[in-house]
Amino acid sequence: MEIKEITNRDIDFAKWYTDICKKADLVDYSGVKGSMIIRPLGFAIWEQMERILDEKFKETGHENVQMPMFIPESLLKVEKDHVEGFAPEVAWVTEGGKEPLDERMCVRPTSEVLFCEHYKKIINSYRDLPKLYNQWCTIVRWEKTTRPFLRSREILWQEGHTMHSTEQEAREETLRIFNIYKEFQEEYLAMPVITGKKTEKEKFAGALETYTIEAMMYDGYALQNGTSHYFGQNFAKAFGIEFTNKENKLETPYQTSWGVSTRMIGGLIMTHSDNNGLVLPPKIAPWKVIIIPIGNVTEKLDELEEKLKQEKITFKTDRSDKSPGYRFAEAEVKGYPIRIELGERDLKEDKITLVRRDTLEKITLSFKEIIPKIKEIMEIMQKEMFNRAKRRRDEMIYEANTYEELKEIADNKSGFIKINWCENTECENKIKDDIGLKSRCLIDSEKVTGPCVVCGKKAKTRLYVGRQY
Amino acid sequence: MEIKEITNRDIDFAKWYTDICKKADLVDYSGVKGSMIIRPLGFAIWEQMERILDEKFKETGHENVQMPMFIPESLLKVEKDHVEGFAPEVAWVTEGGKEPLDERMCVRPTSEVLFCEHYKKIINSYRDLPKLYNQWCTIVRWEKTTRPFLRSREILWQEGHTMHSTEQEAREETLRIFNIYKEFQEEYLAMPVITGKKTEKEKFAGALETYTIEAMMYDGYALQNGTSHYFGQNFAKAFGIEFTNKENKLETPYQTSWGVSTRMIGGLIMTHSDNNGLVLPPKIAPWKVIIIPIGNVTEKLDELEEKLKQEKITFKTDRSDKSPGYRFAEAEVKGYPIRIELGERDLKEDKITLVRRDTLEKITLSFKEIIPKIKEIMEIMQKEMFNRAKRRRDEMIYEANTYEELKEIADNKSGFIKINWCENTECENKIKDDIGLKSRCLIDSEKVTGPCVVCGKKAKTRLYVGRQY
Repeated sequence: MEIKEITNRDIDFAKWYTDICKKADLVDYSGVKGSMIIRPLGFAIWEQMERILDEKFKETGHENVQMPMFIPESLLKVEKDHVEGFAPEVAWVTEGGKEPLDERMCVRPTSEVLFCEHYKKIINSYRDLPKLYNQWCTIVRWEKTTRPFLRSREILWQEGHTMHSTEQEAREETLRIFNIYKEFQEEYLAMPVITGKKTEKEKFAGALETYTIEAMMYDGYALQNGTSHYFGQNFAKAFGIEFTNKENKLETPYQTSWGVSTRMIGGLIMTHSDNNGLVLPPKIAPWKVIIIPIGNVTEKLDELEEKLKQEKITFKTDRSDKSPGYRFAEAEVKGYPIRIELGERDLKEDKITLVRRDTLEKITLSFKEIIPKIKEIMEIMQKEMFNRAKRRRDEMIYEANTYEELKEIADNKSGFIKINWCENTECENKIKDDIGLKSRCLIDSEKVTGPCVVCGKKAKTRLYVGRQY
Repeated sequence: MEIKEITNRDIDFAKWYTDICKKADLVDYSGVKGSMIIRPLGFAIWEQMERILDEKFKETGHENVQMPMFIPESLLKVEKDHVEGFAPEVAWVTEGGKEPLDERMCVRPTSEVLFCEHYKKIINSYRDLPKLYNQWCTIVRWEKTTRPFLRSREILWQEGHTMHSTEQEAREETLRIFNIYKEFQEEYLAMPVITGKKTEKEKFAGALETYTIEAMMYDGYALQNGTSHYFGQNFAKAFGIEFTNKENKLETPYQTSWGVSTRMIGGLIMTHSDNNGLVLPPKIAPWKVIIIPIGNVTEKLDELEEKLKQEKITFKTDRSDKSPGYRFAEAEVKGYPIRIELGERDLKEDKITLVRRDTLEKITLSFKEIIPKIKEIMEIMQKEMFNRAKRRRDEMIYEANTYEELKEIADNKSGFIKINWCENTECENKIKDDIGLKSRCLIDSEKVTGPCVVCGKKAKTRLYVGRQY
């Protein structure tokens, strides 16, 4: 048995990333091209994300449902912009039960049209509103090149679809969820995020407005890590959804949709992990502690496990017959926030060693000090991981006032660049086609400081641009 | 607004069933033929099932994973019996991203072959065993006729797939899960079940042995409500899965798989519900209590809600502007175990009315008695619902010693019939083709009492037969 080797992240970031995914046993490739297998550790991280977000959704009045996974071609076509956006990347089922289908169906790439068809049937009166539905499911988008968690043909996600009687309520909902996403990623994933509206060009197919969560990875690339869309009445009108208001008059409702996916696991990796493997913020780690018993320590091990259970601190114990060194390395690769080395010899002197995963700091203490110390480390580690990521991110945010400056920064640095922009799609396209930077989001909080960096005409807004995953 | 009408279950059981599904807002039909929409109440019941079972799986060492949803045709064909069993009922994806696929892929009807392909890669040494994997997912089987929860083209389920170094361990696993299913259905769903091995003819495609959970519905029909399969080395050999044992010799591992699905919701309905709507055992009901405020009762309502929260008793409050009578009826249709009527006038005399859903018994009591009473009712209700179902089931179990007896019972009664059987598939087929009864399961606990009821030759076993969903 040899310790698993991981590529240096400063030498080859892309290879480092896939090394972490594979060697921390998060995913495996399958014989099904473009689809990945999510292994127990990877899936346990997703379950943590799901549990925390689901609770937040329910606290804010949302209900889970399950819609069909297939969309008949005619249904996909009801909203024009939507079908144009998705038709090129769907998988088609053409045969079922040994017979060709009358109408082919795609596997859902997203479920707006399915929800709208259902809403048309169940929304009749103001009493039926709001409808605050969410579903956890798998969607399919036929990507040509795939990468674990970041771009896959099958994506595990949640998609919320809500209907409201007024525009204001729908706009509030769009932002409510947007804030839940932001807080979740900052508090639990220790990922500082930049948030704002997408440009017209980059917004979701069929939406009026798309709000995006943009995280910066270790290499300065952006990861779009969640979106919340305001649809206005676009889909509702296309589907003929109407309700009678309190005055018994017919009105058209207002709609939102929003989603995050297993992509967040990719973001988590590329924000925090290092050359020794996965590093997980304690609040999202499925198991906070790994215990590695060395020699005959049965009694103390039982006592420690009992204490951890009482304190509701999740843990695993590596009882395998592999060498201590191998087990230490494996615990590092898999990112347990705290490793406890429980050695027969050390215990005779009432000594236990704790190792903190993010800093690899070793702490030696007596048995009775262990629980308070674990709690303390978890709290500090969560905070410091966020602060470290934020410091790094902030250092990689640049500002360009001219096209030459923009090009120069893009040629020499990786990160987000703030620019002044006229809101014209041609200028946005030029930045993308010539420099390879895509719009991240509008910067509402800052005033325009000069003309559009591309055309030199009057700028209307500030904009983040950057390279992306 | 009119109260939703439900067909009488003694007049038209099939229509009664779909009425309950539709009018309790458990499901809706969709424009996608054969696929149903699971609405919030239906899905909340499934979430309860999922949460409880998932905890039991994890307590017994199982880990969740997520495999691809597609199976390339060549992979499906690796195990001969398996492909013969499933190929006729799969949906085929033939085109993705606007291009025809090199090899068509089916949407998984079950995932044995996907797990085996993965296991071949990750199982090398005795250290890698056992592998105790489970996944919660949607599968697709192209059924011609469908019924909500009972038979659908898309099925939400869990499928466990485990690998073991010895036959004994795999056999123990098969039965361990089988017992978890049985206990779950009896304890939480209040459904008495009959358990045993399937006959050779009825076992799962590719398995050596299938253990089944058979519940009897109100109309005497059987519902197969969960299965656990022992595969021996069938699949492992077909896939070439091998591991080195402690003596460094190559061995082939032993395999199990097991699953339950949203079908259990169908079973729950057909066991307990009545002409007024859904009836849910308190232990599985997502919300134990519904509060119906009448008049101005804000203060007491707040107090009651606070108390319920403290006691962790889940509840909903119907604050709508519908009439009290309408809200009562709706609460009955939706099966909340306990309805609390909080009336302005009653409260002036410190009176509150509780209504128990299964018996519709009304209880009037003072405000301070309410929490203990709710707890008491929930406990009694759970027990009595099980006992009622068991009494009815036991009354509908018959015994036939000759073919004529079997025919006569089948013609006049509905239920399960015990027979003596020679274990010959021809006799089993005759019972199915001539009388319409299918084998449920072998009765291990009873001794043979006479010759085979069909051929008159020596019987080898006792067998339950019955009509089925």
